[in-house]
Amino acid sequence: MAEPLDLMAGYHFGWCDPEGVEVVGAQGKALRPALTFAAAIACGGGVEESVHAAAAVELLHNFSLVHDDVMDTDPFRHGRPTVWRVWGETNATLLGDALQALALAVLCDGAPEMVTSEAVIRLARATVTLCRGQYQDCAFETRPSVTVEEYLSMAAGKTGALLGCACALGALCAGADHRVVSAMHTFGTELGLVFQLVDDFIDIWGDPEITGKPAHSDLIHRKQSFPVVCALESETAAGRDLARLYQSRHPMTAARAARAADMIEEAGGRQHTLRRASAALDAAFAALPEELATDDLTALAQLIAHRDR
Amino acid sequence: MAEPLDLMAGYHFGWCDPEGVEVVGAQGKALRPALTFAAAIACGGGVEESVHAAAAVELLHNFSLVHDDVMDTDPFRHGRPTVWRVWGETNATLLGDALQALALAVLCDGAPEMVTSEAVIRLARATVTLCRGQYQDCAFETRPSVTVEEYLSMAAGKTGALLGCACALGALCAGADHRVVSAMHTFGTELGLVFQLVDDFIDIWGDPEITGKPAHSDLIHRKQSFPVVCALESETAAGRDLARLYQSRHPMTAARAARAADMIEEAGGRQHTLRRASAALDAAFAALPEELATDDLTALAQLIAHRDR
Repeated sequence: MAEPLDLMAGYHFGWCDPEGVEVVGAQGKALRPALTFAAAIACGGGVEESVHAAAAVELLHNFSLVHDDVMDTDPFRHGRPTVWRVWGETNATLLGDALQALALAVLCDGAPEMVTSEAVIRLARATVTLCRGQYQDCAFETRPSVTVEEYLSMAAGKTGALLGCACALGALCAGADHRVVSAMHTFGTELGLVFQLVDDFIDIWGDPEITGKPAHSDLIHRKQSFPVVCALESETAAGRDLARLYQSRHPMTAARAARAADMIEEAGGRQHTLRRASAALDAAFAALPEELATDDLTALAQLIAHRDR
Repeated sequence: MAEPLDLMAGYHFGWCDPEGVEVVGAQGKALRPALTFAAAIACGGGVEESVHAAAAVELLHNFSLVHDDVMDTDPFRHGRPTVWRVWGETNATLLGDALQALALAVLCDGAPEMVTSEAVIRLARATVTLCRGQYQDCAFETRPSVTVEEYLSMAAGKTGALLGCACALGALCAGADHRVVSAMHTFGTELGLVFQLVDDFIDIWGDPEITGKPAHSDLIHRKQSFPVVCALESETAAGRDLARLYQSRHPMTAARAARAADMIEEAGGRQHTLRRASAALDAAFAALPEELATDDLTALAQLIAHRDR
């Protein structure tokens, strides 16, 4: 019989059902550990020195997912009820707390001794930055509008910090010098922005069958996602319609959210988002010294930019 | 203008009001850092090598307080509204998350290099154990009864893990050998049990004016605190009355909670709690090699055993 928190973790990771029976189902994409490995290999390192760092960034990412689902009252992840819906908010909070601690323990327990301190400090600081980004994201929900700059600062924290850390830790574990670690950090941070922009994009224009998340979840929560920010800043008729819809006291039904999606597209929000994501992808590659732009890192970056789930 | 999370932290620590204006008010007892310093000095170390560890255990303790207040919907701490009541549950959760990460960052940034890895692993593992203890504590609330053994396992996690870690980190930073670090850990863990038993005691028989917490908060939440566990196991008439009161569907009013307190005392819960706390205090001292039982550590242990808030 597994400990309750272990069971909840196994369920969250898609390994078992709420009773602990093994299942084969949709799991996360494990993009962050893939970046850690690819960064380590690009720097001449191997999987063995970086596997603890890879596990740590994945654990830390999942701490943030479990807590975010509570904060956003998101009902589904990978097509299954979220942890808080199965075990309640208190237990989901505790699971997230334990996953954060485990991430640091795993990293400290197995990263190459020479770099343990720097690795732990980087991961812990990325976590603080991530909390600040998530704070901003939640604060945006009660504001009528948000500037593009504010959005970018939020995304750099909420998503950029951990992707930057994932890449930096790979380089660090491979024994790369300070300049290379720093370049990998920038590469990952820019990819994080790409990731967040694509996340915002597929919330509105993705296929719920493929994403495993309910359609228009951001719009239903009146989130200031990037397409929304652009549309509200557009000074178009559709943008003004959207502002009225976002500020109205009517519940944001599925039908209203679908209308909001059309307004956003008409106001140029879709086009702007694609363009900004493309620019961030370019910035990511520009940060990477040519000899480090391996096929694996390039493929992962393209996957982040062109994913549909 | 402070960052919002910094402001929330400053408020929680009792340094400012919700607008950031400095105040002088009730703050925490800072027992854990005091234990870290006293353990370090007992082992021939100094404050300088152990100050980061001391800060880390205090930050980690406060992470758990902020989250516990959300989970228990506790309205007051040190006589002031809790963070979640001022800024909402989401922001309180984020503050706790950030405080946990800061604890690890501070420890890693400043503990003596030779022991950084072990210190970080000890703190991270204590955090996981603490989450398991808090999980058990919450799970107890929906159960009709709990055995003394189950209670002791919960308290060892919820309170013992971090007090044990506080003492162990002090010894570690002072360069103590493995045997001494381990003895300090046991000393602190037993003190943690004393702490939790006294906590349970003063919830029922303490003075709310002094504790700064509402009277009978545990009883109102139908918590399986140690006096309650003992009373329910007592096979006395008062114990059976308490069982009926705890299981009734009537709301637990202040008047009913006051009656519960009387039943618990009549069933021997008060006496048992004092006796068990005294035994744990003896066990703490028994774990400590004589040469380490300094006046400071002895005074702190007595303070924990005889505190009224």
